[in-house]
Amino acid sequence: MTTELVAVGTEILLGNIVNTNSAYLAEQCALLGLSVYYQTVVGDNPERMRDVIRTALDRSDVVILTGGLGPTEDDITKEVTAELMGFELVEDAHWKEILEKYLKQYQKNNQAQRRITSNNYKQAMVPKGGIVLDNHNGTAPGLIMEKNGKTAILLPGPPNEMKPMFEESVYPYLRSKQPEIIYSQMVKICGIGESQVADEIKDLIDQQSNPTIAPYAKVGEVHLRITAKAQSEKECKKLIKPVVRELQSRFGKNIFATEESKTLEEAVVDMLKDQNLTLSLAESCTGGMVASRIVNVPGASDAFTHGYVTYSNRAKRKCLGVKKATLKMEGAVSEKCAKEMARGGCFFSKTDLCLAITGLAGPEGGTEKIPVGTVFMACCFNEKTVVREFHFTGNRSKIREQAAAHALAMLRECIMEGVNKKN
Amino acid sequence: MTTELVAVGTEILLGNIVNTNSAYLAEQCALLGLSVYYQTVVGDNPERMRDVIRTALDRSDVVILTGGLGPTEDDITKEVTAELMGFELVEDAHWKEILEKYLKQYQKNNQAQRRITSNNYKQAMVPKGGIVLDNHNGTAPGLIMEKNGKTAILLPGPPNEMKPMFEESVYPYLRSKQPEIIYSQMVKICGIGESQVADEIKDLIDQQSNPTIAPYAKVGEVHLRITAKAQSEKECKKLIKPVVRELQSRFGKNIFATEESKTLEEAVVDMLKDQNLTLSLAESCTGGMVASRIVNVPGASDAFTHGYVTYSNRAKRKCLGVKKATLKMEGAVSEKCAKEMARGGCFFSKTDLCLAITGLAGPEGGTEKIPVGTVFMACCFNEKTVVREFHFTGNRSKIREQAAAHALAMLRECIMEGVNKKN
Repeated sequence: MTTELVAVGTEILLGNIVNTNSAYLAEQCALLGLSVYYQTVVGDNPERMRDVIRTALDRSDVVILTGGLGPTEDDITKEVTAELMGFELVEDAHWKEILEKYLKQYQKNNQAQRRITSNNYKQAMVPKGGIVLDNHNGTAPGLIMEKNGKTAILLPGPPNEMKPMFEESVYPYLRSKQPEIIYSQMVKICGIGESQVADEIKDLIDQQSNPTIAPYAKVGEVHLRITAKAQSEKECKKLIKPVVRELQSRFGKNIFATEESKTLEEAVVDMLKDQNLTLSLAESCTGGMVASRIVNVPGASDAFTHGYVTYSNRAKRKCLGVKKATLKMEGAVSEKCAKEMARGGCFFSKTDLCLAITGLAGPEGGTEKIPVGTVFMACCFNEKTVVREFHFTGNRSKIREQAAAHALAMLRECIMEGVNKKN
Repeated sequence: MTTELVAVGTEILLGNIVNTNSAYLAEQCALLGLSVYYQTVVGDNPERMRDVIRTALDRSDVVILTGGLGPTEDDITKEVTAELMGFELVEDAHWKEILEKYLKQYQKNNQAQRRITSNNYKQAMVPKGGIVLDNHNGTAPGLIMEKNGKTAILLPGPPNEMKPMFEESVYPYLRSKQPEIIYSQMVKICGIGESQVADEIKDLIDQQSNPTIAPYAKVGEVHLRITAKAQSEKECKKLIKPVVRELQSRFGKNIFATEESKTLEEAVVDMLKDQNLTLSLAESCTGGMVASRIVNVPGASDAFTHGYVTYSNRAKRKCLGVKKATLKMEGAVSEKCAKEMARGGCFFSKTDLCLAITGLAGPEGGTEKIPVGTVFMACCFNEKTVVREFHFTGNRSKIREQAAAHALAMLRECIMEGVNKKN
């Protein structure tokens, strides 16, 4: 089935917000084996919206629209689509009830000074003969209209309403329309560059048919999604298994997750917990970025106890015991400083591991010897301290982002190696 | 002039990457006073791309295309557009030279195992009679083709190539095409919710014509862009001035910047530097997020000396001297704990200020008394400690993001008030 994504919203046309809905829906469609050939953004103008939706319905089997389902006069996505497809809008008693309950609750919580206006009841109008989708996070129902082999799916614009609705109602709906079962598995890799991964799987990608391998490049990570089509999930898994095994043999310990939702920081925290290890962090140029990612893992506090953001030399000395001489002779951005930061972190926090990061994120201060982008990382574990030198490119925040991502990858490696040595 | 944005790239259709280029270009177009009615995404398929570009040229005066200018066979944006508009592609000697220099340099730096292939020379082919735009960050030249009152502007897909090229070449080009000068100024607000700002400027927005006010909601911030059209920049500024003054009288000290590029963390660091104040941070649930934002300001080290990420109770006691009894009786997420964290931060780091954040980001651990999203922040300054309680909604990372943003706003307020009290 060919699918088209239409985002409705003047705020997207003005660049007030980034159209993340289309990216999310595109990935979900890929996951479902639907071919998305076009994405369009249009405003709340009736003529232009009509043109866009008509064109979309002409050239695609399924059109997924987001936005323009609100209670104001500007919200006309439902009206325009229903008119185009020849659906009459009628009041849905059930949804009207839900609407009133929801709005009363909303006022009670008083999260906003919102009143029930006659406009709100506009949202209880649904296409006669269409499918109405519950919305547990807002007042706009989702809608599905089917006619003459064409399907229009209308979803609310706010991602926190759209995504749950898609997962709960639309995904199963679209999946049931598919002649075959689509099943996919993620393989997440860290510690290797995107281009190197691409080179190492080129042969697999060239010869692929079913399952397919789709690489997704993230900062410091590469995600490979293996997607299979078959008559049953069991068959899909059977098709995917050898590919995953092949990838595991090629990327070995650089694979940190084979679950869709698992993050690199989660993988690290899990390893620490499994081994009953405690972690401290000593960050200079990343300034708390690594700690922040670790803390984003629920329950990280069991393993991650202390974080030191020692951006100033004084703090490096006071909190981590970095030697004055080291800072004077070698400078803060040096192998020696990174080492002393990591050792000091372990000593003062009494943790099993400490990862230290010190570098030059720029834009100022670069030299011949230490150009902007130079970052030293040290990991102290089992009385051993490993140090690495990195050179990143990009602006200040890009350099820091990459440093944080590679720090997590290095941390993961050190835990694996350290533990192996110990056992 | 009506303008349409066309992003070319299968990776966008598959959801591998988010289409941030269109958001950037849309905002730039708004800034230029160009009306963007449509945004489209299409893949590297010749027929579909031809349809999309033809439609765009039919309904819009200017079409800005991004992506598909690379050296591979899949990159056909230039070929398809030139053919549609009737431009012949010829080799550009000057660009061929640049290309060879660039690629040699690229190999020297050896940032990637990239070779000069015959394909690379494909990038030296340009439309005869078109405008060629330099690219200081890549091997694809930008291109402008004008014919019969229609203009196609072709830009490379990577944002780090596209944005500088737009600012250097395309912005002035489009501006020169505009009958009037467009000038805009930003007013950035923190510490007030989006809906409150909207309410307070509703009358201004309703009666606006020239200049216009466009609100952009960010996490914990609201940005208002005031845009005027006139015959000269001087006249524009004259039109904008009273609006800015009106906004200043309405939002007063909640306005933290009137410059386009100034961030909230920059505003905070500037204030600290102006007052010769030193800052330390004590973060629990934000886990280094606030420190990370502060450190993203070049030269922040002059003011920001120590950051403590005390996610564990042990670290709260060890690094900040939080009392065992406080953690036992009141808990880590309490007004008292926040206060002791802030005081301890000042004491141990010997800084003038310390901001402390402790809260419950969830998803687990919520209670009737302390629901998920509860965050206490304390700021210690001049022996005074101010504490505030916040309740945020959303998932763990949303709650933490909002906490970090509001922490910076609170920090800014405390500096202002503290300094006023001092003087």
